[in-house]
Amino acid sequence: MLRKILVANRGEIAVRVIRACAEMGIRSVAIYTEADMYSLHVKKADEAYSIGEDPVAGYLNIHRIVNLAVQAGCDAIHPGYGFLSENADFAAACERRGITFIGPTADVIRRMGDKTEARKAMIAAGVPVTPGTEENLSGLDEALEVAQRIGYPVMLKATSGGGGRGIRRCDTEAELRKNYDRVISEATKAFGRAEVFMEKCVVNPRHIELQVLADSHGNCIHLYERDCSIQRRNQKLIEIAPSPQLDEGQRQYLGGLAVIAAKAVGYQSAGTVEFLMDENDRFYFMEMNTRVQVEHTISETITGVDIIEEQIRVAAGLKLRFKQHEIQRRGYAIQFRVNAEDPKNNFLPSFGRISRYYAPGGPGVRTDTAIYTGYTIPPYFDSMIAKVIVWALTWEDAIARGERALRDMEVHGIRTTKTYYLEIMHHPGFRAAKFTTSFVEDHPELTEYTEKLCKSDVAAALAVAVAAHAGL
Amino acid sequence: MLRKILVANRGEIAVRVIRACAEMGIRSVAIYTEADMYSLHVKKADEAYSIGEDPVAGYLNIHRIVNLAVQAGCDAIHPGYGFLSENADFAAACERRGITFIGPTADVIRRMGDKTEARKAMIAAGVPVTPGTEENLSGLDEALEVAQRIGYPVMLKATSGGGGRGIRRCDTEAELRKNYDRVISEATKAFGRAEVFMEKCVVNPRHIELQVLADSHGNCIHLYERDCSIQRRNQKLIEIAPSPQLDEGQRQYLGGLAVIAAKAVGYQSAGTVEFLMDENDRFYFMEMNTRVQVEHTISETITGVDIIEEQIRVAAGLKLRFKQHEIQRRGYAIQFRVNAEDPKNNFLPSFGRISRYYAPGGPGVRTDTAIYTGYTIPPYFDSMIAKVIVWALTWEDAIARGERALRDMEVHGIRTTKTYYLEIMHHPGFRAAKFTTSFVEDHPELTEYTEKLCKSDVAAALAVAVAAHAGL
Repeated sequence: MLRKILVANRGEIAVRVIRACAEMGIRSVAIYTEADMYSLHVKKADEAYSIGEDPVAGYLNIHRIVNLAVQAGCDAIHPGYGFLSENADFAAACERRGITFIGPTADVIRRMGDKTEARKAMIAAGVPVTPGTEENLSGLDEALEVAQRIGYPVMLKATSGGGGRGIRRCDTEAELRKNYDRVISEATKAFGRAEVFMEKCVVNPRHIELQVLADSHGNCIHLYERDCSIQRRNQKLIEIAPSPQLDEGQRQYLGGLAVIAAKAVGYQSAGTVEFLMDENDRFYFMEMNTRVQVEHTISETITGVDIIEEQIRVAAGLKLRFKQHEIQRRGYAIQFRVNAEDPKNNFLPSFGRISRYYAPGGPGVRTDTAIYTGYTIPPYFDSMIAKVIVWALTWEDAIARGERALRDMEVHGIRTTKTYYLEIMHHPGFRAAKFTTSFVEDHPELTEYTEKLCKSDVAAALAVAVAAHAGL
Repeated sequence: MLRKILVANRGEIAVRVIRACAEMGIRSVAIYTEADMYSLHVKKADEAYSIGEDPVAGYLNIHRIVNLAVQAGCDAIHPGYGFLSENADFAAACERRGITFIGPTADVIRRMGDKTEARKAMIAAGVPVTPGTEENLSGLDEALEVAQRIGYPVMLKATSGGGGRGIRRCDTEAELRKNYDRVISEATKAFGRAEVFMEKCVVNPRHIELQVLADSHGNCIHLYERDCSIQRRNQKLIEIAPSPQLDEGQRQYLGGLAVIAAKAVGYQSAGTVEFLMDENDRFYFMEMNTRVQVEHTISETITGVDIIEEQIRVAAGLKLRFKQHEIQRRGYAIQFRVNAEDPKNNFLPSFGRISRYYAPGGPGVRTDTAIYTGYTIPPYFDSMIAKVIVWALTWEDAIARGERALRDMEVHGIRTTKTYYLEIMHHPGFRAAKFTTSFVEDHPELTEYTEKLCKSDVAAALAVAVAAHAGL
């Protein structure tokens, strides 16, 4: 078994991995930049090392992190999500230095990171993909030709893209002409590679993804699906497991498909196979994420399987603890990504000091967060500050519990998306489990709520107003 | 359905009931004495009313509470546990004023509160009880005679007792002579009634109790058992569901027995049938608790059933939502009662201000508490300040998670039993699931740990030492 793991991440996911290490009797090592000196992951790890002054650069410094792991006597690195988690060079650097990378092989990360490669692998395995190009586009002429053949609207995508970036929808030939150079330029800037490809656009899709787990002994299972259709600008906000929009037959079909997809590429570790479900309930492979995802929590909640622990076991060469028939699913789990943003002000980030924080609690509530009373949220990172996960036996009860848990949670001093999620949950379309990925865009009126201020916030606002009036 | 519920309690159980109300769309009303002005239950309820200056008296004032419920337009009262929860007069007073008492009828509370009555009812229903008296003892002579017949050691018990009070073990005739008047005097003082009875003492027993739920339509189910053997002076410290000391046959047998017991007395609402399990794995009815218990959480965790919600539904005249065959049990849950006590100083209460509080979180962890950073624990009430409940698929994983969650939780400014529980979990007897109700007493060495102080506590202690040295 592994003895000491460096967690190459920060915030709640670093805390999550450190917790798994603690439960498995593995020593944990945190890394931090100066901006994260007072972060919870630093406090909770068994050891913690600075990786420099720049708030972000250290978390992306492959050489420094791998060196540190070697020096600190670590036998493995867990990359979390984001940062270097899907960087094949990082995985390869770990391999070279004799450090176990807790994730799939560098080769699989590279192949799945190349969206054209991934599409080809899926076509070969018999997994349905949207109509489109099998290879990267050679130029605008080919793009126009393919769009003509498969029909508008089409999606122009960066081959190295992912996580919702480097994507443009083109409804007409004119839009395609306009966007072609733009996507190439974006892709070059964001991912350092200019290749693009084209897919037929799935109109009003639902985003359904499958959690898979695979070991080095040929075992591969799925933990059912997550419905991540509630998203804004391709960023997920609320995730649900299982999807209340699927029937049991669709569920079994997709589960089997995900295992076929993972096996086809020789996958190991935890991974996610993402599908789009169109208006006629047809499924199309979208991409495979070769990391643990933000929303892995809801799959854990409905199955009882600790995904991070399985990742670590598999990386150590052990077998998965479960066969597919041993995976029992129960009830519904919903995750709310509580972001430090102001939905009433175009989701503007709202950083600063948390003057008071009350964690939600009671039955069926799990919280994954790195915030605490007195913590100052640095402006350099993702705005997600907490994940509130609720569970109940039925969809209706899970919604009621979600409303209660979000009300229970109090984050004073900054704005969050909490109240906005309450509005979403009141919407009949959400309650009836009828929503597509354009739900948020289709309902701008849901940001028009009145924030109920607590007494201390009122006092603070009054003080500011009085001071302003007095010309202080 | 009920529309507005007054919660006649404080602390975490008041918060628990208020949360259930919120999920069911029922308005909640809190009550508080002056000492509880800043308590979380006051903040979380939809309305809150003062019930007087005296810290405790208000919570026991039947007349005032029922009047308040009527005035505030409540249609029901939830009593929580402790205080008036098993007071038949309270239930009767509610009934008289047209307020629904969320619990069994006054008559059932009275019968089960009278331990001799309860024993008789169980004997009539065929539920095994320990050898002993069927009626109250007429005097010391009869006590000596019965003890002679059933054999020492015997337990001398107050008929109106419960919760571990008004009980003495007598190993010899001399001890029985000495204790007889003492128990009568204790019983008179604590419960206002002098009656006592006698049972054969079950040596080294395990405490196994069954959660039952019954409605007014003749439906009665059980939610499996809890093992509450880890206790100190009859106060439970750590509770486990299901018991790792039972096999499946014993589990089914006890479940059936609990339903027979509840049905025999016409039980409605949530209740607990407590058994002792002797060294030869025989079970004896001990008592029935006619309230929701502190440890109801672990039964919720393994079955997914919200016990408070079922209590409320049943009180409103609705049917239970579940049939027995629909109750699915999964994994193991452990509850730790985090008490504001210093185990290293004979469990002396440790009240005061909580300078910082970090709630535990992550997978498989539930917290029920009313504390927060800056909260001052008043010295007038029970010392339990938080319940940490962990869940995992196996007994071993549940222990690992329990250790992690307790380390995760930080309560600064006061002493708690947290570290002591870590010591208990390290004990091979606990891990091997071999423990009786004398485990705590048998292992006084488990309080001999070294408390790891955090930096701020060290600074505070240093400041005190320096100030003392300087004669300040």
